[in-house]
Formats: sequence, structure tokens, C-alpha cells
Amino acid sequence: MNETIKTILERRSVRSYESTPVEKEKIDLILQCGQFAPSGMNRQPWHFTVITRRAMLDKISAENRRVMLQSPVEALRLRAEDPDFDSFRGAPMAIIVSGEDEAGYAGADCANAVENMALAAQSLGLSSCYLASFKIAIETPEGAFLLDDLRIPKGFKPMFALSLGYGNEVLGERAPRREHTITFIE
Amino acid sequence: MNETIKTILERRSVRSYESTPVEKEKIDLILQCGQFAPSGMNRQPWHFTVITRRAMLDKISAENRRVMLQSPVEALRLRAEDPDFDSFRGAPMAIIVSGEDEAGYAGADCANAVENMALAAQSLGLSSCYLASFKIAIETPEGAFLLDDLRIPKGFKPMFALSLGYGNEVLGERAPRREHTITFIE
Repeated sequence: MNETIKTILERRSVRSYESTPVEKEKIDLILQCGQFAPSGMNRQPWHFTVITRRAMLDKISAENRRVMLQSPVEALRLRAEDPDFDSFRGAPMAIIVSGEDEAGYAGADCANAVENMALAAQSLGLSSCYLASFKIAIETPEGAFLLDDLRIPKGFKPMFALSLGYGNEVLGERAPRREHTITFIE
Repeated sequence: MNETIKTILERRSVRSYESTPVEKEKIDLILQCGQFAPSGMNRQPWHFTVITRRAMLDKISAENRRVMLQSPVEALRLRAEDPDFDSFRGAPMAIIVSGEDEAGYAGADCANAVENMALAAQSLGLSSCYLASFKIAIETPEGAFLLDDLRIPKGFKPMFALSLGYGNEVLGERAPRREHTITFIE
């Protein structure tokens, strides 16, 4: 099995991290891998917001908690009541990927960029967690001020994020893959 | 630069292929990499349709051509008038990834699976092209019969496809990456 396939099969979502910062050279390589993702008509309809300022991640997380505590959905309220609640899973940094409103395939294009970055991180000895729930508050009128705080360009909206860092989680058994998901037409 | 990052940076969309079939062991490894993609709440809301029967790809392509020739969009009509028109870029095989209707993140989850497969293919010396336009006919009432031909499970819809094979394209200069796509919050 080659290194790339090993990296793909070994990537896991990690939800606990050391506070050790990620080296700048590694961040730059990870970003480059995001930028080399395939995109529809090669539009590259993405913007990367690299947040190493933990206070900013805490601010986003506090806003999410506020929204979730008011949610009619019990599961969201329960998650927000956890004293260790953190939308970024305690990672020292995260990269938010925003998609261009006008680009028809922005969702898939940004997903490709995040997956490339998750794999690059794994290959560099880092752990990551692919996130969508980090934007609960940002998508409400009361939390929209975060778009300015994060300097998200006009015409773009946060879609996914990747928390990044050196993991300190003892990973359990991997969840089984769903069965009967392949049809061969030969 | 490690092998994984090299693979990520070297992957290109290839639109011309040898007719040489792809080895079964390689197809299986590529599918496994698709199944190990991250998905929201680990729902794995995907179905893989592996088509090595070129006549089936021709049939889908012919239906797409028929729809495109009737399109009010001139660019689509012009593409369909090309005598070499082929939705699968002349590849000997393709994998269609369908997403579960009920899964909120099926679009991103299926994109992650396709990107994993594109990178696995690249690492195995194969070329690929990430496709969305292959489903133009499938999404019309007249072309919906293709869902039965392809045995797409109920409750799933084709989202993306990956053409696969040994490339025979002389690749030109790579398109430049878009500039000013990164903000650092330090």
C-alpha cells in the first residue's frame, strides 16, 4: 500500500488536541494543498480564513453556545450545556473555508479543498476534524457580525472548517463502513 | 515534500485516455479510499456505481447529448455538436457517486469520497476527471430511466462521477491559482 492510500485510510476525526502550535511551514503546505483541489470549471470559488488566535475561536464558540442553548432541538441544547463545549474541539487553530455565493458548485469545491487539507495534515503528523457546525451563530442575524470579525470577503459564506493540531486522543475502534454501497456494471 | 502532498499537488483533470482497462485490485483500493472519506455524523450517505461497461457510459452520454442539443444555452448545444462528445471524456470506466436524499451533508460527503478516489487513483499511476455534468439527462423525466439501468438505490441521487483510466493527454501549463484567497487571523 502506498503512502497516499495509507494516509487516506488512516485519517480520523480527532476531537482532543495538545496546545502546541502548528508550525508555519506546515500551515502553508496545507493551504497550498487546499488551493490545488479540483473545482467546477476551475473557478476556485473559495476563501481560506486561517485562525491561530485561540481567542477568536473562543468567541465564535461562545456565540454558537448562546444560539444552541436557545434551540428547540434538545440534542443541541445538551451539547451546549457541556462545560467543555468548544466548536473547534480544543484545537489550537482552524481553517474556515468560505464559498462564493455565485458559484454553482461551491459546496463540492470547498469540500474538496477541506479534504485535501485534512489529508495533507495527516501526512504531516497532524490531526484534524472536519467541521460544519461551527457556523451555527454566523448564520443568524445576531451572529453575522462574526463575518466582519473574520474579514470574510463580500459574496462569500463560511461552509466548512478544519480544526488542526497535534492530537492527544486515544482513538477507539474505527466505525464500520456501511455495507452494500457498491454496484458493479461490468 | 512527502508522497501524499506530492500526489495532491500533481493531480490534474485528464480528458483523454488509453482504452487499457483498469486493474480490478486498483479499482477495489480506490473504492475503499472513497468509503473512508469523512462524512457528517459518520452517516456515509453514499452509493458507488462502478461502470466498466463502456456501452453503458455511451448510453448515458448519448442521452446527455440529446438533452444538450435541445438546450436554450448555446454553450451546451455547441459542446453536444462536437463529434467526439463524451460525458466521460473517453475513459474506459467511471464511478458515479450518489448521495442519500435525507442526509443533510450528502453533497459534501460525496465530494469528499470523490476527492479521496481521485487522489488514490493518482497515487496508483492512473488519471481521472471529476465530473458533475454527466447527470444532465438523468435529472430530466425522459432520462430518469437511466436510474433503473444503473440500479441506483431508491432514496439516492447521482451527484458526482469520476472518470478513470490511464491518461494519454499531454498536459499543458497548470492554470494559475486564484490570488488573495487567504486571510490570517493571528
